[in-house]
Amino acid sequence: MPRNPQLDRNGGLRHLITLEGLPAEVITRVLDTAEPFVSVAEREVKKVPLLRGKAVFNLFFENSTRTRTTFEIAAKRLSADVINLNIGVSSTAKGETLLDTIDNLCAMNADIFVVRHSQSGAPHLIASHLDATGRSHVHVVNAGDGRHSHPTQGLLDLYTIRHYKRDFGGLVVAVVGDILHSRVARSLIHGLTTMRAAEVRVIAPRALLPSAGEYFKQYGLTQDKLALAKSDAIVMHPGPMNRGVEIDSAVADGARSVILPQVTFGIAVRMAVLSLIASP
Amino acid sequence: MPRNPQLDRNGGLRHLITLEGLPAEVITRVLDTAEPFVSVAEREVKKVPLLRGKAVFNLFFENSTRTRTTFEIAAKRLSADVINLNIGVSSTAKGETLLDTIDNLCAMNADIFVVRHSQSGAPHLIASHLDATGRSHVHVVNAGDGRHSHPTQGLLDLYTIRHYKRDFGGLVVAVVGDILHSRVARSLIHGLTTMRAAEVRVIAPRALLPSAGEYFKQYGLTQDKLALAKSDAIVMHPGPMNRGVEIDSAVADGARSVILPQVTFGIAVRMAVLSLIASP
Amino acid sequence: MPRNPQLDRNGGLRHLITLEGLPAEVITRVLDTAEPFVSVAEREVKKVPLLRGKAVFNLFFENSTRTRTTFEIAAKRLSADVINLNIGVSSTAKGETLLDTIDNLCAMNADIFVVRHSQSGAPHLIASHLDATGRSHVHVVNAGDGRHSHPTQGLLDLYTIRHYKRDFGGLVVAVVGDILHSRVARSLIHGLTTMRAAEVRVIAPRALLPSAGEYFKQYGLTQDKLALAKSDAIVMHPGPMNRGVEIDSAVADGARSVILPQVTFGIAVRMAVLSLIASP
Repeated sequence: MPRNPQLDRNGGLRHLITLEGLPAEVITRVLDTAEPFVSVAEREVKKVPLLRGKAVFNLFFENSTRTRTTFEIAAKRLSADVINLNIGVSSTAKGETLLDTIDNLCAMNADIFVVRHSQSGAPHLIASHLDATGRSHVHVVNAGDGRHSHPTQGLLDLYTIRHYKRDFGGLVVAVVGDILHSRVARSLIHGLTTMRAAEVRVIAPRALLPSAGEYFKQYGLTQDKLALAKSDAIVMHPGPMNRGVEIDSAVADGARSVILPQVTFGIAVRMAVLSLIASP
Repeated sequence: MPRNPQLDRNGGLRHLITLEGLPAEVITRVLDTAEPFVSVAEREVKKVPLLRGKAVFNLFFENSTRTRTTFEIAAKRLSADVINLNIGVSSTAKGETLLDTIDNLCAMNADIFVVRHSQSGAPHLIASHLDATGRSHVHVVNAGDGRHSHPTQGLLDLYTIRHYKRDFGGLVVAVVGDILHSRVARSLIHGLTTMRAAEVRVIAPRALLPSAGEYFKQYGLTQDKLALAKSDAIVMHPGPMNRGVEIDSAVADGARSVILPQVTFGIAVRMAVLSLIASP
Repeated sequence: MPRNPQLDRNGGLRHLITLEGLPAEVITRVLDTAEPFVSVAEREVKKVPLLRGKAVFNLFFENSTRTRTTFEIAAKRLSADVINLNIGVSSTAKGETLLDTIDNLCAMNADIFVVRHSQSGAPHLIASHLDATGRSHVHVVNAGDGRHSHPTQGLLDLYTIRHYKRDFGGLVVAVVGDILHSRVARSLIHGLTTMRAAEVRVIAPRALLPSAGEYFKQYGLTQDKLALAKSDAIVMHPGPMNRGVEIDSAVADGARSVILPQVTFGIAVRMAVLSLIASP
C-alpha cells in the first residue's frame, strides 16, 4: 500500500491537503493537540513560543480575508513570523510560474505555506513539488482549493462535534446546502466517514440552485425544520452566513447554535495543524 | 444620571467613541498616561510589553493608510499582535452583517477593535453590541466615523496644546476650515469645551465651499493672517495638509508650526488610549 | 573631494542609494556582514535581535510584492517592527507632498525607510531631505527607483559571484538582456567595476526590443549559447524569470544555475544592509 503523501515515514503529519484518506488516529491527534490551545486564547498573554523564528507564508491566490485572518492569528499566537502574500491568479497562469514562486519563497527559507487557490489541486501540486525536490522541511497547509477541499474547516467542524457530543459513533449528521460546489461539505463528509459517524445525510439541490426565496423555502434552516431534529441537536455553519437564505436568524442566534464556538475552535485547530506539521 | 457608556463602573475608560461627554479627569488621565510614551519613542528599543499577547484588530471599513499606520505603530510599540483588516463597505451593507463580522472576530479572541467607518455611529453600534452581549473584555476605539467623531485626533490636539501652553484656562483657540464636515474639528471643540478653554472661535464657510483659490483667499492660513494672532500662538493641522489651499507653506513649515510634533504626540496618545482601555 | 553622501564621517554606511561611487571596502563590508546571516536562515529559530524595537517602513510607491517580501523577511529576522505602506503615486504627485509624507513618518519615529519608486531619484531626494533637516538617525535604502538603481540586487549579485568564484579579479562577466532599461544591470555593472572584475560584456539590443520569438533567438540564454562560455561559468537571473523568452528552462533549472541561491543570499545581504546602516 503506498504511503499517504501527507504523512512522513513515522505517520506524522507533513502536509495537510485533504481529509480524504487521512487516518482516524491522525485526525484524533490534531483534535487532541487543539484542546490546550483553546485555553491559550483565554489567557492574559495569548502566546506560546512553539513556532518562534519560523516563517509562515499566507499564499492567497484567491482572496479570503476571513480565512487568511484565522491563519494569521493562529501563526502569531504560536510566535511565528507571518508574511501575507495576495497573489493575483493572472501573474501565475502557468503552472511552472506557480512553482517558480514556490522555489523563490523556499529560497527565502519559508517553513510553512498556507495556500488558498481557486484551482483544485494547487496545494497538492506544491506539496508534490517540495517532496520531489527533497525539501522535506517545508510544509503545505491547504486553506481551500477550488471545489476540492478545505481540510482545516473540516477539522474544526469535527472538533466542534466532538466537543459537544463527545463521541462520533452514534451520530446522525445532516449536511444541508449547495453541497455540489462546496469544498467545506466535502471535507466534513470525508472526516465524518473516517471518524465513523453513524450516518451522514446530504440535503441539497440536485442541479441548479433555485432562486433565493425558493432556496430558503426548501433548504433554509428554520425553527420549524429544526424541530424535526433530535432535541439536543446542534446547529453549525462555516460562515459567512447568508441570513434569511441559508439560515433563519432565530436559528443562527438560537440556543442550539454553536456557530461562534466553531470560530474559536477554528483558531485552536489551525494552531494544532501548524505546530504538528512543523514539529521535528 | 445614566453612566457614560464609554466608562466602566469605576470610571475607567472602556471604549473610546467620542470626546462628547467624556469627563475632564478622564481626558487628563489619557494625556498624563501619554507623557512617558513620548520618551519610549526616542529610546533605542522602542517597545514596552503592556499589551503583549493581546490582539488588536484594525477594522478599516474606510481606507486611511495614515490613521491605520499610527494605530499599528502604537499597538506594536505596546507589543500587541496587530491584524489589519480592510473591509469594503459593500460586504457589510446590512447592520446585522457588520455585527456578524464583530461576533466572528470576538470568537477569535480579539481584545481591541480600532474601527474606521464612513458611517457615523458604527463604532458606537459595535460597542453597544459588545456591552449588550456581556463581552466586557473587548474594547472599541473609534478611529474616525463619518462626520461624527475622531476622538484620538482630538486628544492628540489637546496633548499638543497642553504641551506648549501648559494650561487650557486662558486660551483663545481659532478653528479654521470646513468645520461643518469635519469630525476632527468636532472632536477638538468638544475636548476644548470640556477642558474649559476660555474661548473657541470657529472660522468656516457657512455653506458650500468656495473654489480652491477663493477658499485660500478667505480661509487659507497665511503669514499675514497669522500676524493677527498673539505673538506666541502655535499653528496646528491634523494632516494631510493641502498646501496653498488650507495653509501657506511659509506657515506650515514656519517657527510657530507644531504640526509634526502633533504626529509624534499622536502615537503616544494612541498608546495611552490602547493601554488604558485594556488595563484590568 | 566631497564626501560620498551615502557615508557618514567615519566612512560607515548611512544610506544605500546606489552602488555608483560606493567604495570597494564598503561593498566588501556588506558582503562580509551578510555571511553569518546566511546561516541564521538555516537555524531552527531564524531570529537575531539586532534591530529589536526599530521601526522599518516599507514605502512602496510602486508595487513589487517580491522585493517588498524580501525586505520584510530581512527586517523581521532582525526583530524589527515592519510597517508596509503601499502608496499610490497619484497621492504624491507633487514632490513636496512626498516630503510631507516622509516628515510625518519621521515624526512617528521611523528608523529606516525602504523606498521603491517609479521615478529615478526619489530615494536620493528623501535621503537629502533627511540630511538637510538634521535627521541623521533616519536611514534610506533604495529598493529600486525608475531606471536608475537597485543596489541591494547588485550587492546580492556580487555576493553570489564572490561565493562561487571567491575573487572578482580574473572574471569575465556577460550581462545579457534589455540593459538600457534595467536598473538591475546598471547596479551590477557599477558593482563589478568597483570590485575590479577583469571584463564586463554587455549583450543587449541597441534600441527597440524585437518581438518575443526574435528576442529569444538572439538574446535568450540557451544551452547552445551557454556552451560558448567557460566550463565553470555560473548562470544568474534577478527574477522573475520569463522562461522561453529570456532564458531556456533547461538552463534556468540546470546544474550551472545559481538563481535560487541568489534569492537566499538576497535575504542575508538585505539583513546586512539594514543592520549596518542602523548600527550606531
